[in-house]
Amino acid sequence: MIMKKKCALYASKLVKDGMVVGLGGGSTISYLIDYVKDKDIKVVSPSSKTVLLAQKMGLTVLNTQYVDHVDIAFDGCDEVDSHLNALKSGGGIHTQEKIIASMAGEYIVLVDESKFHETLAFKVPVVVEVLPKAYSIVKKKIEKLNGNIELRTASNKDGFLMSDEGNILLDVYFDGVQDIRLLNQTLLMMPGVVDTSLFVDILTGMILVNDKGVFKKERNGEFYAL
Amino acid sequence: MIMKKKCALYASKLVKDGMVVGLGGGSTISYLIDYVKDKDIKVVSPSSKTVLLAQKMGLTVLNTQYVDHVDIAFDGCDEVDSHLNALKSGGGIHTQEKIIASMAGEYIVLVDESKFHETLAFKVPVVVEVLPKAYSIVKKKIEKLNGNIELRTASNKDGFLMSDEGNILLDVYFDGVQDIRLLNQTLLMMPGVVDTSLFVDILTGMILVNDKGVFKKERNGEFYAL
Repeated sequence: MIMKKKCALYASKLVKDGMVVGLGGGSTISYLIDYVKDKDIKVVSPSSKTVLLAQKMGLTVLNTQYVDHVDIAFDGCDEVDSHLNALKSGGGIHTQEKIIASMAGEYIVLVDESKFHETLAFKVPVVVEVLPKAYSIVKKKIEKLNGNIELRTASNKDGFLMSDEGNILLDVYFDGVQDIRLLNQTLLMMPGVVDTSLFVDILTGMILVNDKGVFKKERNGEFYAL
Repeated sequence: MIMKKKCALYASKLVKDGMVVGLGGGSTISYLIDYVKDKDIKVVSPSSKTVLLAQKMGLTVLNTQYVDHVDIAFDGCDEVDSHLNALKSGGGIHTQEKIIASMAGEYIVLVDESKFHETLAFKVPVVVEVLPKAYSIVKKKIEKLNGNIELRTASNKDGFLMSDEGNILLDVYFDGVQDIRLLNQTLLMMPGVVDTSLFVDILTGMILVNDKGVFKKERNGEFYAL
């Protein structure tokens, strides 16, 4: 069994009938949907691809706007560390992912070993979602923090790649972040910043797969085999 | 001369040729536009009414999105206190106002005496601009902070009154705020919250008018007559 599928299988065992379940984006989540599709659950998702797939599989998808509690939510990520800080930068839907995480009793990332670092490596950018009107001033303020900014664009559209909320996404590369929590707070306090792809104090656990097996880690705990 | 006009007249003396000037909304700002319309300035504004009026008066209005510095900005407010904290709740454009404030060398509110309190009285709500998808969870989290929420609606539209950014506005009434800075930070750190109408550490000055005259106060300074 391929590793991602194995990871999804173990995650699916945490999903019980009657739950509202958050499902993020990516291939592991697709496998997970297949494993849980016959359970009596309702789903919320930040990813339009996942919504469509879950509906196709016969699952009921709720409108996130009118949900204030999710029992358990699963997501992928680009980097996660031993303190359960994470970077979720690739998909450009971190703002919605964080909203669903904020209503979840458990918020668990599913990763293969390559995503794990003792502390976040910042090999991927911190993505900052910015209101269009704040583009120039937020850019200036982030450059003062020594962030190297690439404006996220699409190859098949002139201009900005807009988020689902109609905002601009800045891919910001930082060289040597000393204090992840302070960086995140500084960015969030800037007028015009909607959210960042830096997840601090949000994950409650991770399920990690490698060629030795599947392991789980909770906040302040050690890895244990599933 | 009516008081608001007098206030605008004194504000206009701070506007010099060559400046980029921020102009908020409201009647005092309308008077101010009249006083500065023949100066060689460029304008940015969070208020579509002000933009249209300034253009009509022959002023050049810049697109806020591509501006990262404003020399001086003027705005009204609902409450301002002796520490230069302010509530800008009525107009529903506080997010854009804060973006312009964040790029301004000087950010000055123009008020009559009725708006001044030794410390903010919170007779007006703290307005929280929220992404539609986060409506239920942010409502729940604010209620846990003992905020009494009224969803801002329009009498001539069913559903939400949307902000210029396409978001929802929650009018939140708090009873006895102990720590304004902490409240603001707590709200801003909630996923899905875009910005609040609470201005902390943003104003650089106020110009206050009463029947005795026009007075100015800067941060950490006393009122002095203009």
